[in-house]
Amino acid sequence: MAIIQKNNSGMKGAHTAKKPTGAMNGSRPQKAKAAPAPVRKNAGIKNRMTALKTQKHEPKKLSKLKFYSLGGLDEIGKNMYVYEYEDSILVVDSGLAFPDDEMPGIDLVIPDISYLLKNREKVVGIIITHGHEDHIGALPYVLKELNVPVYGTNLTIGLIKCKLSEHGSLNQYKLNTVKAGNKLGLGNFLVEVIHSNHSIADSVMFAIHTPVGTVIHTGDFKIDCTPIDGTMIDLAKLGELGKKGVLALVSDSTNAERQGYTMSERSVGAKFDEIFSSATDRRIIVATFASNIHRVQQVINSAVKYGRKVAVSGRSMENILDVASELGYMKIPKGTIIKLDEVKKFPPNRVVVCTTGSQGEPMAGLSRMAMNDHKTIEITSNDLVVISASPIPGNEKMISKVVDELFKKGAEVIYNALDDIHVSGHAKAEELKIIIGITKPKFFIPVHGEHRHLMLHKHLAELMGVPPENGFIMGVGQVFETDGETAKINGSVPSGKVLIDGLGVGDVGNIVLRDRKHLAQDGLIVIIVSMDSVTGEVVSDPDIISRGFVYMRESEDLISEIRERTLDAIEDCRYESSQKDWGALKVAIRSHLNTYLYQKTKRSPMLLPVIVEV
Amino acid sequence: MAIIQKNNSGMKGAHTAKKPTGAMNGSRPQKAKAAPAPVRKNAGIKNRMTALKTQKHEPKKLSKLKFYSLGGLDEIGKNMYVYEYEDSILVVDSGLAFPDDEMPGIDLVIPDISYLLKNREKVVGIIITHGHEDHIGALPYVLKELNVPVYGTNLTIGLIKCKLSEHGSLNQYKLNTVKAGNKLGLGNFLVEVIHSNHSIADSVMFAIHTPVGTVIHTGDFKIDCTPIDGTMIDLAKLGELGKKGVLALVSDSTNAERQGYTMSERSVGAKFDEIFSSATDRRIIVATFASNIHRVQQVINSAVKYGRKVAVSGRSMENILDVASELGYMKIPKGTIIKLDEVKKFPPNRVVVCTTGSQGEPMAGLSRMAMNDHKTIEITSNDLVVISASPIPGNEKMISKVVDELFKKGAEVIYNALDDIHVSGHAKAEELKIIIGITKPKFFIPVHGEHRHLMLHKHLAELMGVPPENGFIMGVGQVFETDGETAKINGSVPSGKVLIDGLGVGDVGNIVLRDRKHLAQDGLIVIIVSMDSVTGEVVSDPDIISRGFVYMRESEDLISEIRERTLDAIEDCRYESSQKDWGALKVAIRSHLNTYLYQKTKRSPMLLPVIVEV
Repeated sequence: MAIIQKNNSGMKGAHTAKKPTGAMNGSRPQKAKAAPAPVRKNAGIKNRMTALKTQKHEPKKLSKLKFYSLGGLDEIGKNMYVYEYEDSILVVDSGLAFPDDEMPGIDLVIPDISYLLKNREKVVGIIITHGHEDHIGALPYVLKELNVPVYGTNLTIGLIKCKLSEHGSLNQYKLNTVKAGNKLGLGNFLVEVIHSNHSIADSVMFAIHTPVGTVIHTGDFKIDCTPIDGTMIDLAKLGELGKKGVLALVSDSTNAERQGYTMSERSVGAKFDEIFSSATDRRIIVATFASNIHRVQQVINSAVKYGRKVAVSGRSMENILDVASELGYMKIPKGTIIKLDEVKKFPPNRVVVCTTGSQGEPMAGLSRMAMNDHKTIEITSNDLVVISASPIPGNEKMISKVVDELFKKGAEVIYNALDDIHVSGHAKAEELKIIIGITKPKFFIPVHGEHRHLMLHKHLAELMGVPPENGFIMGVGQVFETDGETAKINGSVPSGKVLIDGLGVGDVGNIVLRDRKHLAQDGLIVIIVSMDSVTGEVVSDPDIISRGFVYMRESEDLISEIRERTLDAIEDCRYESSQKDWGALKVAIRSHLNTYLYQKTKRSPMLLPVIVEV
Repeated sequence: MAIIQKNNSGMKGAHTAKKPTGAMNGSRPQKAKAAPAPVRKNAGIKNRMTALKTQKHEPKKLSKLKFYSLGGLDEIGKNMYVYEYEDSILVVDSGLAFPDDEMPGIDLVIPDISYLLKNREKVVGIIITHGHEDHIGALPYVLKELNVPVYGTNLTIGLIKCKLSEHGSLNQYKLNTVKAGNKLGLGNFLVEVIHSNHSIADSVMFAIHTPVGTVIHTGDFKIDCTPIDGTMIDLAKLGELGKKGVLALVSDSTNAERQGYTMSERSVGAKFDEIFSSATDRRIIVATFASNIHRVQQVINSAVKYGRKVAVSGRSMENILDVASELGYMKIPKGTIIKLDEVKKFPPNRVVVCTTGSQGEPMAGLSRMAMNDHKTIEITSNDLVVISASPIPGNEKMISKVVDELFKKGAEVIYNALDDIHVSGHAKAEELKIIIGITKPKFFIPVHGEHRHLMLHKHLAELMGVPPENGFIMGVGQVFETDGETAKINGSVPSGKVLIDGLGVGDVGNIVLRDRKHLAQDGLIVIIVSMDSVTGEVVSDPDIISRGFVYMRESEDLISEIRERTLDAIEDCRYESSQKDWGALKVAIRSHLNTYLYQKTKRSPMLLPVIVEV
């Protein structure tokens, strides 16, 4: 269990005493040293934390802090970041990614944690910034291999519990609830929890105090001055840390390519009010992200205001609302929520259905409604459907399909191309600059983004006075190393993608994927040849089985040509090599047919020759 | 060959005499009849054209005009629209579509023209609105089956020739060049060619005069008051037709969901000037659509202005520029264009490379440069790459990948998320309303768009006074039928998608696609069992071959389990059915293994049992 401390003055001392970092706002960093602050007694941190950076007369005692990512760089998803100092390894987040087009048949992707497993005795815990899948989704798989304590805020832990129960593995794990303001002593690290804003409630940043300095790890965030839970991101705390000296800022880059500020979550509520007030005669269906409980809260607020009951569709949304309500994150007047099968008991203009499927996911609520495949909700021309989300890159076509189907059923649809009914959960350029400006980091490491986002974010840091050489664009696995004074990329740790397909974790690799892509492109042909085991002669005409190549019944000529060519290949081969070299024979058949089929069809199906000895 | 007439007063007479259509601008259509205009002599049109709608005393003589689409409704791509009156069938455009995720391995999709082939003697010609792939791309396949005259403007015919040469089939076809202002008598139709604006030069609309009234078929368009070729869309002609009476408007819906006006193509030139003037020390690479010769012209203009040579990368762009230059569509000062391998002879700030690949297409110029796979151009940190295009839905991830790779090489990249360096070629809502308002159609048929675009476009027409019942949202193959007074959807003609895979046209159908998708998801297992042809006994252990399922070398236990289960299935089956019922045996093996594998792995690979009799 973690040591939770309300005030750890020892650590504070350690940091006020650190060298000041580069001056901000365009000027170059100053090299002048600040006067060391008095070093106070370390209360409750392990002994090695007393090897303070201020003790300049004993510099040899300081080790190097390492930071690396096992996921979340050059990609959106599977976030996992690691801090390592001497014999302590601290993990931040443990997320999953969804497969891309290059991974047919794959369900999920999680980080390769072989380095952590190899150093399992060092791992002091996993601290979680917030409850989104790309930050908690890998936990069921990771904890199974590496049962270390997990720390997160109330809602985050609630969602993790929910996830672990689904995997049937809740009880064996050590889940710890923390809250903003808490400080956790974890091995060599003192972790301070800082309130943040994002598109899920109870998101936090971490200030990770280490013997060589403090790192601020933002997690996903935006600056929302009027969030639905009423509490703005703790900029004051970030400013305080900035004043004391921040060694490095590790910050969310998702929206680095977007100018300006992200609107407040509250602005969507105003839009909902507008929509609800004008849709006086119709049922309203709102699709949004299941985890955005503040968005759902705003749907409920508008519903209450305009006298509608709220029903929820989609297992993930039901689960999350259950957890959030139970933990007190939702304000729902009694009698507001009705069951989905009660919807038909009310007039259309007295009901709102809140559903999953805002990304067009084929199995989610909205898609099922659009495709006439939903158990209880049937879309009619009396429905107003609001898709309160913007497409995650790659999902555009799926969403279009759903919108088109809703239009076909006569529903009115309000979606991102027509109106602003969504705000992002991520800080845009101006907000990112504020965080850099207020924390004044010596080193800057953009994370959580594709390469261009990281580059653009680094550029923002340069605008804010971080020297270009102090900004580090890293790849997954690359190790950032600092002694508190200087920093560099120094080698790498094993890293990669572990593919999850059904129950298989990591049993599908590049060869299997390559075969799947080949099969998808041109299908396959199995050629079965029976050979006399004594004479090496072909016993009967080859059997040809094809799938995904051509429609066999309409391609009899081609099939019999394949049969002929197989016999030709065998004949040729037997002149050249010894009888019964089945390996050589298969190669010959494959090469012969490959050339023939490509000339004939400009396709290259997978060829599987099978020799049966009889 | 077409009858081209400068002035066909007879047809004009026919139309001025038509009933006035619904009043525009919000009011309901007026039912009052206009006084019939004098019917003048029909000059050069077949006799049946004299069966004029004005001759109210002989209404029985009038047949019905049919209009249907063989592609382009509920989809973006493979545009093909057909007008049929008695024994004349007139085809407008003949485009291709690119395959979606549901069509693995497919290269192109073209319309099913079986209806046209069945009625081949009626087809009077194919008129082409403009030279984009989604309007001309199916011609090589269509003309091969249906060798009818093709009519298009100078550049359009030039591009069609280029395309047909690539297919080695240029000389056998009847290609006719027309220009705005021309009138073509084609069977029962008199087609008037009207100048338009779009993202390719020499785009036209058609006014299709028929015995029951005039239909305006817009093709793809925008209203560009300052186009690069200097000639604005002929709104005056549309107004003239509107005043005389337009029976139906068949109009481009692509941007119906976007508010406001599309910016002029010229606005991109100003942006190029800005970029070129500030990039004083770097090479510039501009990626855009090969066919947008006005965009390329503007790159050349800026290059000339700022003293840079221009090199072109990408076969399609080279081809199109060759055609456009030869036909006089480009203004290129001598000495401006250099060969790609001459680029390195000039200082970086004296060169621009204009390239294909703005959609992230893996084989195109820009992707090759980004992936270090280009023959002559290597990207460095001294490059400024401008992607002057916006992503076509579905291409977002490919483009991101290219942008990321360019960033990794240190290049500066200006792309749609960062700046406006592209304008659409399609009219937005306000422009669409202008066309409806100026043509005052009786009936309105939105085409060229997904279902939502069609619906939103119909809604715009309603705002402009077209009664809801006079707007027709159609599906591919559905027949719109009108006698000039009333209209309805009446039945359908055969229609569909023909898939092109390599040299195969239409030999890949739903079964093959289903198999490809199945193979891509979970791979396959081939189970080869040798059975004694006399006793029906298994002769040896089954052979198992698997691809795309699991990595076989690491799954020996699973493979041997599959072998065991196969023998179990055979054993079970032989108790239940007669010996040597190989069909039943295969079913048993498949079902047995399917259940086992799903329980074990939650995957369902394709199972191919093969029985070899020995």
